[in-house]
Amino acid sequence: MKNVRTDLAVEARELYCKEKEEEKHGIKVSTKKIEDINITTVDVLNEEGEEKIRKPKGTYITLDIPKVTLYDSEDIEDISKVLAGELTDITNKIKLNESMTVLVVGLGNWNITPDALGPKVVDKLMVTRHLKKYIPDSIDEGIRPVCAVAPGVLGITGMETGEIIRGIVQNIKPDLVICVDALAARKMERVNSTIQIGDTGISPGSGVGNMRMEISQKTLGVPVIAIGVPTVVDAATMANDTIDIVIEKMESEVSKNSKFYSLLKTIDTEEKEELIHEVLNPYVGDLLVTPKEVDMIMETLSKIIASGINISLQPALELKDINNYIS
Amino acid sequence: MKNVRTDLAVEARELYCKEKEEEKHGIKVSTKKIEDINITTVDVLNEEGEEKIRKPKGTYITLDIPKVTLYDSEDIEDISKVLAGELTDITNKIKLNESMTVLVVGLGNWNITPDALGPKVVDKLMVTRHLKKYIPDSIDEGIRPVCAVAPGVLGITGMETGEIIRGIVQNIKPDLVICVDALAARKMERVNSTIQIGDTGISPGSGVGNMRMEISQKTLGVPVIAIGVPTVVDAATMANDTIDIVIEKMESEVSKNSKFYSLLKTIDTEEKEELIHEVLNPYVGDLLVTPKEVDMIMETLSKIIASGINISLQPALELKDINNYIS
Amino acid sequence: MKNVRTDLAVEARELYCKEKEEEKHGIKVSTKKIEDINITTVDVLNEEGEEKIRKPKGTYITLDIPKVTLYDSEDIEDISKVLAGELTDITNKIKLNESMTVLVVGLGNWNITPDALGPKVVDKLMVTRHLKKYIPDSIDEGIRPVCAVAPGVLGITGMETGEIIRGIVQNIKPDLVICVDALAARKMERVNSTIQIGDTGISPGSGVGNMRMEISQKTLGVPVIAIGVPTVVDAATMANDTIDIVIEKMESEVSKNSKFYSLLKTIDTEEKEELIHEVLNPYVGDLLVTPKEVDMIMETLSKIIASGINISLQPALELKDINNYIS
Amino acid sequence: MKNVRTDLAVEARELYCKEKEEEKHGIKVSTKKIEDINITTVDVLNEEGEEKIRKPKGTYITLDIPKVTLYDSEDIEDISKVLAGELTDITNKIKLNESMTVLVVGLGNWNITPDALGPKVVDKLMVTRHLKKYIPDSIDEGIRPVCAVAPGVLGITGMETGEIIRGIVQNIKPDLVICVDALAARKMERVNSTIQIGDTGISPGSGVGNMRMEISQKTLGVPVIAIGVPTVVDAATMANDTIDIVIEKMESEVSKNSKFYSLLKTIDTEEKEELIHEVLNPYVGDLLVTPKEVDMIMETLSKIIASGINISLQPALELKDINNYIS
Repeated sequence: MKNVRTDLAVEARELYCKEKEEEKHGIKVSTKKIEDINITTVDVLNEEGEEKIRKPKGTYITLDIPKVTLYDSEDIEDISKVLAGELTDITNKIKLNESMTVLVVGLGNWNITPDALGPKVVDKLMVTRHLKKYIPDSIDEGIRPVCAVAPGVLGITGMETGEIIRGIVQNIKPDLVICVDALAARKMERVNSTIQIGDTGISPGSGVGNMRMEISQKTLGVPVIAIGVPTVVDAATMANDTIDIVIEKMESEVSKNSKFYSLLKTIDTEEKEELIHEVLNPYVGDLLVTPKEVDMIMETLSKIIASGINISLQPALELKDINNYIS
Repeated sequence: MKNVRTDLAVEARELYCKEKEEEKHGIKVSTKKIEDINITTVDVLNEEGEEKIRKPKGTYITLDIPKVTLYDSEDIEDISKVLAGELTDITNKIKLNESMTVLVVGLGNWNITPDALGPKVVDKLMVTRHLKKYIPDSIDEGIRPVCAVAPGVLGITGMETGEIIRGIVQNIKPDLVICVDALAARKMERVNSTIQIGDTGISPGSGVGNMRMEISQKTLGVPVIAIGVPTVVDAATMANDTIDIVIEKMESEVSKNSKFYSLLKTIDTEEKEELIHEVLNPYVGDLLVTPKEVDMIMETLSKIIASGINISLQPALELKDINNYIS
Repeated sequence: MKNVRTDLAVEARELYCKEKEEEKHGIKVSTKKIEDINITTVDVLNEEGEEKIRKPKGTYITLDIPKVTLYDSEDIEDISKVLAGELTDITNKIKLNESMTVLVVGLGNWNITPDALGPKVVDKLMVTRHLKKYIPDSIDEGIRPVCAVAPGVLGITGMETGEIIRGIVQNIKPDLVICVDALAARKMERVNSTIQIGDTGISPGSGVGNMRMEISQKTLGVPVIAIGVPTVVDAATMANDTIDIVIEKMESEVSKNSKFYSLLKTIDTEEKEELIHEVLNPYVGDLLVTPKEVDMIMETLSKIIASGINISLQPALELKDINNYIS
Repeated sequence: MKNVRTDLAVEARELYCKEKEEEKHGIKVSTKKIEDINITTVDVLNEEGEEKIRKPKGTYITLDIPKVTLYDSEDIEDISKVLAGELTDITNKIKLNESMTVLVVGLGNWNITPDALGPKVVDKLMVTRHLKKYIPDSIDEGIRPVCAVAPGVLGITGMETGEIIRGIVQNIKPDLVICVDALAARKMERVNSTIQIGDTGISPGSGVGNMRMEISQKTLGVPVIAIGVPTVVDAATMANDTIDIVIEKMESEVSKNSKFYSLLKTIDTEEKEELIHEVLNPYVGDLLVTPKEVDMIMETLSKIIASGINISLQPALELKDINNYIS
């Protein structure tokens, strides 16, 4: 059901846990804390887990970062380094060595601020493939060839993002693809404060972007790591949650066998959809809930992610050197 | 109560009418239709009216425009002309003659897309005061001196917008000030589809902008016309309405004297605030609900309003000539 | 020699004509006038022509448009229609029928204003391929599938633009590729007032963009039409021309056999380069000469070209319908 | 003569020194070096000096900074601190104490990239006046009230920038006004690599902005410090210099009493203007010469200047705290 769709494995797991109290086989969860960043790793181990959590088999790492400030370059650097560390753990798993080429793809629509995260990250990446290829002597031995593209969304290009990426991959032949995308969250508290890293690529219909074709090792032939940040809650989801909260509150106030209680139960999905329509009309489905300062927040988040990728992909360099390259 | 705050006289009137069934003295409402634009004029005639509708004494004209399309220059032109007509009616009331100077003020924060309407309108205005002053011979006799400014908001400038405007008015001495601002609506259906023109200036706390000092004839010493378009619904308002709708629905389903009904009544404002906090946490108060395409919609709306002002202030010119001046 | 490089066939021809007074075989030139737009068609017929004019064999149509104004939608429309007509003549030659798919490529760097023409055009195109593919019933029979992409430049992506386009072409299999690019002119008088349409694709090193791989039927396997507008003169070219003009002027003032005259002759290319370095230091090679209002001019030019392409590719539609689709 | 107009005292002095070999009374010049930044202080002591150098009596400090890189936050910080130091020396001279209010004015046109420096600086300032006024308890004792505005240029507002500023000053009553503006340089080598600080305000016709009314203590009634960076060379100036260089070169190659030499002398100003027209036609006077990456360079320069002002105006704070405030 659309209204409970989420791109975050941690949220999917919460939804699942609400239903069943104790954890079933097929899903392994571990947590750790680095500085003030909580890191949760959800491993989906088998089909059973896939079904429960409605996410493909693989590893999903979630960083809960403190609400980001706009200019504080030190905070941005600290978070970037933690992100880089987690990213490196995943790339090590796929045995990516220093000389291998990486293609970074910034997904999303640059005309819709909270969906522009991917393109903004691409803007800030250290792109080196052309230097390695055309003027190899002018740059350090240890630098990895990195290329990047922000292809735009179906509505802008008329082409599946997946089709475009596949075409590029076939010609450039990278050893790894990293996709960066803005996601939709179920709860405001996650918006702009959670970074998810996954090794299963991007599945259809994710995020605010418009993709139908999966972007994964299966479709591209190379490993695909996805980095996502929830930047919006869709207004229908918010309205739906509001209704649930009201009903829950009432349920908690009356005895389970009263007429009132049973009436509350009668408010089913269909009726809820009607109520939601009433609230959101005439924009249903196209409404986003975002913080006022979304433009500035996207700027900061894109710095964090770009910097995290740069650090992880260029282990031979200091952050200062990376920044000098970029300029 | 913050959650029912509205900048639109038509919405204020609806709120008022909900409470009392028949209309009291002090408020006169008339409606007409030009092409497919419904125009409602609300006149607040006296203190009694002011109290009821919580708007200062004066005239409020509301244009309900069809959902705007992005590029269709013909539609934009048609709406502009209707807007220009209404604007001219109001400026005639204050006996503005062709040679009098008008200062247009674009209120709002250009860093927050749905609040950038005012600054975007100023961008598209036909500004002529400097030509009349420095190279009068180079332009038509009939052209009115117009100047414009987008001063920014308190958080950007550290100054009351009202203080800035007053300073400019004291030095430039315009005969009329027109303020353009983005407003907050109570209902999504009004967002980006309603234009309000009022002759009472702008009162504290309106819109998304941050103003404390009133911008009106009282504070500036010259007549002030305000043009506003609701571009957002604040998320708290939306959550509040959602709760009301749920409760209404339930009330409609049970007898007025049941225990259930009385319980519904117990969900008072304070409890509602709690529920809303639960939904919006941690962003309460800073969340906006906007359509995905808000950037493009602001572009179109600013064209309509700028063009409406240009046509109304330069009766001696054809729209084509105006556009040639602007370029 | 870099300083006389030009992307315009008409300029290349002028350069050639300066050297030889009468026209040689291998180049056919014809001119016509539609409204106030002068149209010059240069046909390079054979190798001899290719050598003389340093442009590959093919047809080059040049529209000399009146200096564009910023807002005048009528002027923009008129020029668009003339452009559309010429474009249609060329597409007819390659027997493009209504159902065939077209890929429009916006070349250039969106971070450098005068080089952002291509990406800005893509922004304003009527993209339909996805509609034809996913919701064919919802749109008119006669609508042609069009897709579009702005891949960015080598410095941004680390990939040859040609590699990216080839990959997309291999996956999307369009019947025609139209490339839009900002060019460099030799003379200010051509800047922003000339549109060139060619059927030979784009050759290495053209424009301000960074391409090494040719984008043509040879490399893509489908016909390639290039639309270009000179948006800058490189400062070295301007300095070079300035020097030439000074020398010419002096030459004209003295007898051909004076010591002075012979001395003027001694100012050879190498010395000129030195002088130019002296003027442009330390920026040599990276300096652009542009009109102040370059941002606004790019906006208008991109409207003209996008509209011209839209009209030409969608003969079944009125411009108004096209604009409605776009919105 | 327009073609030798310069906003830089150091350039004015060079022009002057070309004419007279040794320095006359009325001008005092001193230099120092901090890190790799050369600092030149030109004091215009009396009318004699004013005449020679064509700049009002006062102090002009010039920082020659190394070519700025785009992202290197450390370099940016270092330069900011040197700028802050010089700025503090000047504010100390006017006995500005910690509690006094400062108004920062960002001059220039945000629609013309190289002229947008002032507005971009205002964007990045630590604005505190409203906090001191409305929520004094929430911020540190030692914080100085700062406010800021970017009023736009005559062509955008129809009002003299000076009129707008005067109006604001009359209402806000700051103790000091700091104006930031983009300037025109005579030589490419100064562009984007020189920062000038002056205590004489801004005189008519400076920079690329359009001001007629002087902005100074005389017109505003409070001290005015001007910070300027040359961001363009106007193309006419560049063409003029090119011609001079050619002529100089020739002069150096022939004996002073040859017919040729005397002919060179005949190329007078008027003829030069003709030649320049020939080169720049049809854009004469509206052409700017800028580096390709002007957008990114403006971003970096505005960071340096904003940070320099923030550090100097808030001595009680660490840069880190300042950045936290800003966010």
